[in-house]
Amino acid sequence: MAVPISKDLVGMSFEPIPFAWTSKDVMLYALGVGAKPDGELDFVYEGKGPKVLPTYAVIPGMLSMGGLVGNVEINLAMLLHGEQGIALHREIPPEGKVQVVGKISFVWDKGKAAVIGATGEVSDKDGLLFTTTATLFIRGAGGFGGERGPSTADLNKPPERKPDVTVEDETRPEQAALYRLNGDPNPIHIDPDFAKMAGFEKPFLHGLSTYGFVGRAIVKGLCGGDAARFKSFDARFADQVYMGDKIITQMWKTAPGEAIVQAVTQKGNTVLSQAKATYKE
Amino acid sequence: MAVPISKDLVGMSFEPIPFAWTSKDVMLYALGVGAKPDGELDFVYEGKGPKVLPTYAVIPGMLSMGGLVGNVEINLAMLLHGEQGIALHREIPPEGKVQVVGKISFVWDKGKAAVIGATGEVSDKDGLLFTTTATLFIRGAGGFGGERGPSTADLNKPPERKPDVTVEDETRPEQAALYRLNGDPNPIHIDPDFAKMAGFEKPFLHGLSTYGFVGRAIVKGLCGGDAARFKSFDARFADQVYMGDKIITQMWKTAPGEAIVQAVTQKGNTVLSQAKATYKE
Repeated sequence: MAVPISKDLVGMSFEPIPFAWTSKDVMLYALGVGAKPDGELDFVYEGKGPKVLPTYAVIPGMLSMGGLVGNVEINLAMLLHGEQGIALHREIPPEGKVQVVGKISFVWDKGKAAVIGATGEVSDKDGLLFTTTATLFIRGAGGFGGERGPSTADLNKPPERKPDVTVEDETRPEQAALYRLNGDPNPIHIDPDFAKMAGFEKPFLHGLSTYGFVGRAIVKGLCGGDAARFKSFDARFADQVYMGDKIITQMWKTAPGEAIVQAVTQKGNTVLSQAKATYKE
Repeated sequence: MAVPISKDLVGMSFEPIPFAWTSKDVMLYALGVGAKPDGELDFVYEGKGPKVLPTYAVIPGMLSMGGLVGNVEINLAMLLHGEQGIALHREIPPEGKVQVVGKISFVWDKGKAAVIGATGEVSDKDGLLFTTTATLFIRGAGGFGGERGPSTADLNKPPERKPDVTVEDETRPEQAALYRLNGDPNPIHIDPDFAKMAGFEKPFLHGLSTYGFVGRAIVKGLCGGDAARFKSFDARFADQVYMGDKIITQMWKTAPGEAIVQAVTQKGNTVLSQAKATYKE
């Protein structure tokens, strides 16, 4: 039976969920987040591995949120995916068999909204492969008497100077149609009627596809194209990306192996904010 | 043991090969041949079926050629896919479980080259679903004392007038990277080194992806967007399509429910020729 949202949920963990992927899955993912043969052949061609984009971690990581549904009283229509993080312990292999263990890491009461942190620990036969973190905002679910949690308004603010590295890319009219084949079939990203019903002008790109575009920009701009140098990436979803939009990733090197990151579109709006990447120099 | 190419092969048939597909497979196929949510939502969104592009028939149909390998002495490096045809008996369902029976329908001796016709009969539990035909040119394999076969130089020649319908589309830099995920992984379509070794400037698009682009143009231009009206489509591969090329499909209505078709690129070269489509008026 589902339990209500409260601070008592913190530490709750769910049964391990098995998951597996193949070369085809990771290449399909790479194309879904905009990878192209020219310059990124390793990621879309098994003859070169394939190499796996670090942000592929979010695909098995999504299962860590699955445990919430059915176990905790959440109105899915009120749910927003607010933040996403990944931390890699090893390079992701092109074929994988893993167990995903989901845990609730925090629950905050923002008055109107409840905020739940879900952590996913993803392990294969050689041990922990990567950890994912997702922050879920549940509108209208606050007021249960919990703590507000720390303010994050100043987290990972870009320095007052031009970015050190900028990588520009564009999304295709069919970008979300392709990304959703990774097992993320929310109709809001493809069905014009559904998107309008939900209050949007038209379908928009999955936040996690944008996350993958920005992850590719980090691999290219900070890791010299080498996925093995990518260590972690935490970000907040700030606004919708619409099909055809450019995703312009701005990176500021703030310490050795550390950068503040944000992404804007050609319209000037910030779509991914307060982000931080770590990598091997 | 493999037998040599000769006219004695005609009528040879191979063991039925089982094959299955899901909604995800047919949507991935649709994206691989250029379908876009805007105007073709039914083909890329399971919420609208999905509808299945008629040319998806070539994917299970490819198995009809599989029987040749191992049973007939063919040097794969000398093999060219010359022509492709499909004839639909019913609309293709979004999920399918079929048996594919491959047969050799003709063998011609063109002097230098041998030409083999492979027919695939694809049936589900309700009977014959579609038939595919492929013509394989094997360079250097002629001279075995067979018949030349009929001349096809004048087959399906476009009339001396402007096309009745023209549909223009463009291929993406990542088009072949996407198409090959349909189980057609020849490196010549993605690996620059491999393509050069084979005598091409760079990787080029699968002929069968071009075939799918032209099939979409037929659905749009002759069938009012309704895949159920598509009956058959026979075509010859005339030249390479390179990533980024436009595929301009020209259609001449020559009889009720019948059209001559060809496709050219923005460079003016004909890439698909001597083609004919039949459809319900």
